[in-house]
Amino acid sequence: MKHFTYKDVTLTNGFLAEKEKLNRDVTINAVYDRFDETGRIGAFDFNTDAVHYFWDSDVAKWIEGASYIIAKYPNAELEQKIEHIIDCIEEHQGEDGYFNIWYTVKEPEGRWRKRATHELYCAGHLFEAAVAYAEATGKERFLGLMEKYADYIYKVFVEEDSAEFATPGHEEIELALIRMYRYTGKKKFLDLAAHFINLRGVAPKDKNAEQYPMVDFRESPISQSHLPVREQKEAVGHSVRAGYLYTAMADLVKETGDLELKAACDALYEDITMRKMYVTGGIGSFYHGETFSKPYDLPNAEAYTETCAGIGLMFFCQRMQTLANNATYADTIERVFYNGTISGLSLSGDSFFYENPLEITLAEHFSNEYGRRRFPITQRKKYFTCSCCPPNLNRLLPRLCEYVYGIEGDMLYINQFAGSILESGDIRCEMTTNYPVDGKITLRAEGVKKLAIRIPAWCAKYTISKPYTIENGYAVVENDGEIAVEFDMTPFAMRSNSKVVRDVGKLCVQMGPVVYCAESVDNGENLHSFAIPANINATAKFSEEFDLNTLEVDAFRYVDSCESLYTRADAEQTKRIPTKLKMIPYYAFANRGETDMLVWFKEY
Amino acid sequence: MKHFTYKDVTLTNGFLAEKEKLNRDVTINAVYDRFDETGRIGAFDFNTDAVHYFWDSDVAKWIEGASYIIAKYPNAELEQKIEHIIDCIEEHQGEDGYFNIWYTVKEPEGRWRKRATHELYCAGHLFEAAVAYAEATGKERFLGLMEKYADYIYKVFVEEDSAEFATPGHEEIELALIRMYRYTGKKKFLDLAAHFINLRGVAPKDKNAEQYPMVDFRESPISQSHLPVREQKEAVGHSVRAGYLYTAMADLVKETGDLELKAACDALYEDITMRKMYVTGGIGSFYHGETFSKPYDLPNAEAYTETCAGIGLMFFCQRMQTLANNATYADTIERVFYNGTISGLSLSGDSFFYENPLEITLAEHFSNEYGRRRFPITQRKKYFTCSCCPPNLNRLLPRLCEYVYGIEGDMLYINQFAGSILESGDIRCEMTTNYPVDGKITLRAEGVKKLAIRIPAWCAKYTISKPYTIENGYAVVENDGEIAVEFDMTPFAMRSNSKVVRDVGKLCVQMGPVVYCAESVDNGENLHSFAIPANINATAKFSEEFDLNTLEVDAFRYVDSCESLYTRADAEQTKRIPTKLKMIPYYAFANRGETDMLVWFKEY
Repeated sequence: MKHFTYKDVTLTNGFLAEKEKLNRDVTINAVYDRFDETGRIGAFDFNTDAVHYFWDSDVAKWIEGASYIIAKYPNAELEQKIEHIIDCIEEHQGEDGYFNIWYTVKEPEGRWRKRATHELYCAGHLFEAAVAYAEATGKERFLGLMEKYADYIYKVFVEEDSAEFATPGHEEIELALIRMYRYTGKKKFLDLAAHFINLRGVAPKDKNAEQYPMVDFRESPISQSHLPVREQKEAVGHSVRAGYLYTAMADLVKETGDLELKAACDALYEDITMRKMYVTGGIGSFYHGETFSKPYDLPNAEAYTETCAGIGLMFFCQRMQTLANNATYADTIERVFYNGTISGLSLSGDSFFYENPLEITLAEHFSNEYGRRRFPITQRKKYFTCSCCPPNLNRLLPRLCEYVYGIEGDMLYINQFAGSILESGDIRCEMTTNYPVDGKITLRAEGVKKLAIRIPAWCAKYTISKPYTIENGYAVVENDGEIAVEFDMTPFAMRSNSKVVRDVGKLCVQMGPVVYCAESVDNGENLHSFAIPANINATAKFSEEFDLNTLEVDAFRYVDSCESLYTRADAEQTKRIPTKLKMIPYYAFANRGETDMLVWFKEY
Repeated sequence: MKHFTYKDVTLTNGFLAEKEKLNRDVTINAVYDRFDETGRIGAFDFNTDAVHYFWDSDVAKWIEGASYIIAKYPNAELEQKIEHIIDCIEEHQGEDGYFNIWYTVKEPEGRWRKRATHELYCAGHLFEAAVAYAEATGKERFLGLMEKYADYIYKVFVEEDSAEFATPGHEEIELALIRMYRYTGKKKFLDLAAHFINLRGVAPKDKNAEQYPMVDFRESPISQSHLPVREQKEAVGHSVRAGYLYTAMADLVKETGDLELKAACDALYEDITMRKMYVTGGIGSFYHGETFSKPYDLPNAEAYTETCAGIGLMFFCQRMQTLANNATYADTIERVFYNGTISGLSLSGDSFFYENPLEITLAEHFSNEYGRRRFPITQRKKYFTCSCCPPNLNRLLPRLCEYVYGIEGDMLYINQFAGSILESGDIRCEMTTNYPVDGKITLRAEGVKKLAIRIPAWCAKYTISKPYTIENGYAVVENDGEIAVEFDMTPFAMRSNSKVVRDVGKLCVQMGPVVYCAESVDNGENLHSFAIPANINATAKFSEEFDLNTLEVDAFRYVDSCESLYTRADAEQTKRIPTKLKMIPYYAFANRGETDMLVWFKEY
């Protein structure tokens, strides 16, 4: 299927609309202010000492996000901020087209010498920003500058082969170049993207390239440089790098029809979703190097699961949708967005998690003079030294609407459910719903013959007001008037595969696509002492605070009748007593002070 | 109560006797050979570069262990090895009495300047070795040398106060000095012990002392220097240091009757056994600094639980027995020895665990170029760079027999159960038993009016062939002929306090005092998928290999009926099927290759 652009779709109400609005009203400005305070904006004047080698990319992502906003909600102030940065870029761009603050101001002798330091990654984000700004405003000055830079990169990496490495240490430019190709029509950019993708894992130069200042990952899975991409069937290494590479691979398949590359994409998607993804959609469980771990190794309290990795997985799924009309991709997007990705943003819209663990147990947070047990932070921060996630949310949220609909021939795909209006040429669709607060959806479409309505994988029972057939997870109906759909939103328990050692024998709670957690602030200490049955009984209640329902679940709790550390189980000194477990949407954890949190509960 | 000496008690058969014999036949020589190969023995020639600042103590502990052996099993070769080391000590001891290899050979300018580098700790172990050798052989040359050293330490630390610190950074010398006092009768040594104990946590010098090469722990709980000892009510810091300090505190109470110090000992014992001890008796759960963590923080796979810390806890409990005739101390000793302490020694007797975790899950052992998830090693080693645990076993095992009996007035205490003969003056007792393989015990005692037979805390049902009254956990009977005791050895499940977050809702299996574990080598992968009921049904079978019973326990296992990572629990795609769980005594884990191991199982 093809997607509509964010300009074609308006979110009218509900959770997605609220998050889009929060970004527009609060987050976009909060991120800019932090970047300004920390010198990231000032660094574009090329007169600062306070520059890090990936700051260009932070600001580029912010520009990209701001561009999407002003396209639909004109904002002179935002536009002026962007124009100022473009002025700086124009002023300081090299004659040859080169633009990189670090390698101009701080270490000019290092240009094209250090594979690991994000030089091409920064270029990629600038390219995406330039295309976004052009799309948003029609103004192509920035795009022109970046085309010149891309031409220069083509010369260095393809014509001259004069850089000391062959492919980026951190992927991103590949998908950016394909995007630039799609906007400009210039095949050179597609060729350069293909060049980088195809050389990955096979270029002798990369194996010998200087690695400073990062640890050695020349032939390492860390940067997916261990194998040619068509032989990569297991998701490994840095999970954000992985998401961006796999996205670009799928984009390249779309352009070339390369079936071998498609098979690699399919295998990678399966490996992630069948073996390496949390129930929250988070990926990249391992702290050191921010990487994937072994299959089924999904620790909860130590989960890394970077917000950016969730966003990367959404990108990858969206591209996979363009290759096959299978509902699985929208299922995964839904799980990833509603849970382990939007959890990266505070309810207030101005604080962020980089890591999104599935458990906080403060009783285990211990340190002494020799060291500490390593856990993710327990409260969102307004700023990180490595601040990739906040502007990544800036650019994700204005385009949430793009995930809702798809089109293939005369079939309109309903991938996500949100109060929205689609208007694109002759095609129009109005979706009326409070999903996922309740399961009722009304669709009125024009300009298409059929609708393919995704039946969510989590959904056990639903009704559709028209006759339908199921195709690849979609209910296909003729478009002859209003269609009413209702998904049964009764909360239910989920089980993990038994190979997930930390979750086997446990249950988590979902209502629709929303994964729930419990916090000590609602339930008292020792969340681990609660148990729930496989057939849960839960009462849902809408919460203004969370824009979703909260739940009260019938549960049991282990209670001691003596203080002994160990007792014979047949002495019954520990009892399970019935109680209620108050649960909130996982994404909203840690918004009410530092408190314990748990997603997976023992099965009673 | 008072204890008999190891010379008074002979272990005739059973588990304790086998471990004593293994040490005598294998371990004592294996440790010597490793120490010889690594230069620890040669270092006593003062002509080597290969010296570490705590090597003196390693060899001293070995001498202590070897002394106990030759006292009962004359061995010219062992005695000659000891005599050679004493020759070296005599040759290289300073005129002033000082003896320390590191601070003579490597860093003479550092003498009495560095609190953290085990200088007094090494002295303490040499003192213990000297007393042990004198007790064992009647030869007092070594003791004379060490008395001279102790006199010098008294001069430096009490008379002159000329050292740059006031108390040892690693406790040990306190209990050693009290032992030296008890053997020699010289009150100066008791005074010096009391000096070190009483100054702990209050000496201004310690707070300012140079800390090199360890991290700062001047006022830190790490070395129990954060408070005056009488105000220490919570077990904190390095768990081996803690065990040795608490042992010395109890020793000092015995000598002085200091009730305030006794109250601190009572509180520390309670804090350890009610909040900070694994079911295996292991203590010191935290890797960094080898320390206690918060109350109830007892992670299984990451458990540190050093073998030496178990030994230190046995010492502390034994000293507490001398202050109060309460069965709890023998209960704790039994739990500590049979499980998390003897687990430090391989079945072959020549390999060692420093750490004794309660879980090995190899599927979680993951590392990349950036780091690794930290777990204890999974196979015992013949040698460690920091090799304190092996010679600590050398000196523990020959004195196991001392833990069996106690005497107070006309009452003979039966603290532990083991085939044994006690002969001390007019007192004689013969204990016939295969405990803990079965629960039958026959006692024939002479020279005492009453026997106090411990009723183990784990024991729910027992018979005694004579009338008895229960006093402080002991069954007191008149001594008028053979007494037959039988403890019900039916295997049972144990529960932890619900505050132990990693164990709540789980069960472990015991038979008598023996904690069981399951290994993948017997049960296949994914031990976490097993569950057992609170009222277990188990079949026991004696194993020659383990010198104890193995168990086959009726269990359930989670089995997947699809490969999905997550499924609705009401879809029943994961099932619990009945199965058998083969269990071995915990102490014997990791003796049959690298394999998963688990102690705590989900409750069905």
